[in-house]
Amino acid sequence: MKRVRLWVSYDGTHYCGWQIQNNGITIEEVLNRTLTELCREEIAVIGASRTDSGVHALGNVAVFDTSSRIPGEKFCFALNQRLPEDIRIQRSDEVPKDWHPRYQNTVKTYEYCFLNRKIPDPTRRLYTYFVYYPMDVEKMQQAANYLVGEHDFKSFCTPRTQVLTTVREIYELSLTREGDVIRMRIRGNGFLYNMVRIIAGTLARVGTGLYEPEQVKDMLEAKDRQKAGPKAPPQGLTLVEIAYPDTE
Amino acid sequence: MKRVRLWVSYDGTHYCGWQIQNNGITIEEVLNRTLTELCREEIAVIGASRTDSGVHALGNVAVFDTSSRIPGEKFCFALNQRLPEDIRIQRSDEVPKDWHPRYQNTVKTYEYCFLNRKIPDPTRRLYTYFVYYPMDVEKMQQAANYLVGEHDFKSFCTPRTQVLTTVREIYELSLTREGDVIRMRIRGNGFLYNMVRIIAGTLARVGTGLYEPEQVKDMLEAKDRQKAGPKAPPQGLTLVEIAYPDTE
Repeated sequence: MKRVRLWVSYDGTHYCGWQIQNNGITIEEVLNRTLTELCREEIAVIGASRTDSGVHALGNVAVFDTSSRIPGEKFCFALNQRLPEDIRIQRSDEVPKDWHPRYQNTVKTYEYCFLNRKIPDPTRRLYTYFVYYPMDVEKMQQAANYLVGEHDFKSFCTPRTQVLTTVREIYELSLTREGDVIRMRIRGNGFLYNMVRIIAGTLARVGTGLYEPEQVKDMLEAKDRQKAGPKAPPQGLTLVEIAYPDTE
Repeated sequence: MKRVRLWVSYDGTHYCGWQIQNNGITIEEVLNRTLTELCREEIAVIGASRTDSGVHALGNVAVFDTSSRIPGEKFCFALNQRLPEDIRIQRSDEVPKDWHPRYQNTVKTYEYCFLNRKIPDPTRRLYTYFVYYPMDVEKMQQAANYLVGEHDFKSFCTPRTQVLTTVREIYELSLTREGDVIRMRIRGNGFLYNMVRIIAGTLARVGTGLYEPEQVKDMLEAKDRQKAGPKAPPQGLTLVEIAYPDTE
């Protein structure tokens, strides 16, 4: 038996997120089914990040155990032959049998894309959040700066019972404009449920002038979900990278 | 009665091109149906460019005649309320009754996008042509330079009987790389059937080393479709703009 790690990219448009559920098809389910066929044994992957319905990924991470004789680094090609074209394995390798994608230190990077123009662009609708009102990127960056560092992000998450602490550290939160696209890049040691989308939704309101940048500081201090902005829609969000500083 | 002009953008993924046909749904058909409902009279648009199945547009142009009392510039908003989200009108206005989108001088701009990396990216598969072998952009540009200017592009089109001449003028043909994307931008006074995709397919082969740049000069001079490269797939192509220098 060996443990194989996959770097998984996907277009989340047609999936009900990562995690297996009854309501519809998920990334996890497609991977399990494809691996089970390929390895001719029952396979169940363990994913690093359970992305929501409609969210995209360039580099989610998953592992599985198998007795297959296919070398770890070859799973990438074998799987891409069989997977639907909206899921692609970017890389695969063998890891120690106790390597777990969630129970260790990670640095996760997400991007959230706003499309800021007067009329939507159909060719970008699946990967951006369309915002009609002009957005002030400098104000958004000012507000973002209050969130960088170690804080209790209770105001910026959807409550879930199993969470032990709502303290997280954001290493980087930058906003850049290229033409009509505003890109929010956020990097941290982990994110609470819906945290990136609530930050994106809050900063969008700062950008359009509904909130002043300073109000975001108050929202953070309030530790009350009611004080922050709404969560931004899923299609603007992409899980870009998960790094494992202790094992790389 | 008045004539209204539309600037039409669309994601061509789910359409059988612009022109009405029996095999499947087209942009023209959706526009006619939506306008007929909106104006409560039978409407048939005339399009500037009959893009192929799977090809995208940011600025195709169409006109229609109507006795509706909706002002020309308001059709943009009225239509966007009713159209599916993969079609959006970017602008509308009233034009003289004899203004025709095809029978006058035009400058058309297209972009063709290659995705040049080892593994496909699912989030860009619908808008790029994936090329595995490393592409040399400088060689592609060298080859492209032979095509700029007025030439007989007989080697670079799929024959169609109704064409009077295969001479066209290319004003600009530039290739640029941004990360793993290579973007071909082409501007000219009109393009033959499949011309942009055949040029893209030929330059792709120059990029990967299958043709030398100089061979493209020979292909042009041969005036023989057999000599040039294959046509590149539709999803990499976007009709960016149609300009009317005589009426603007």
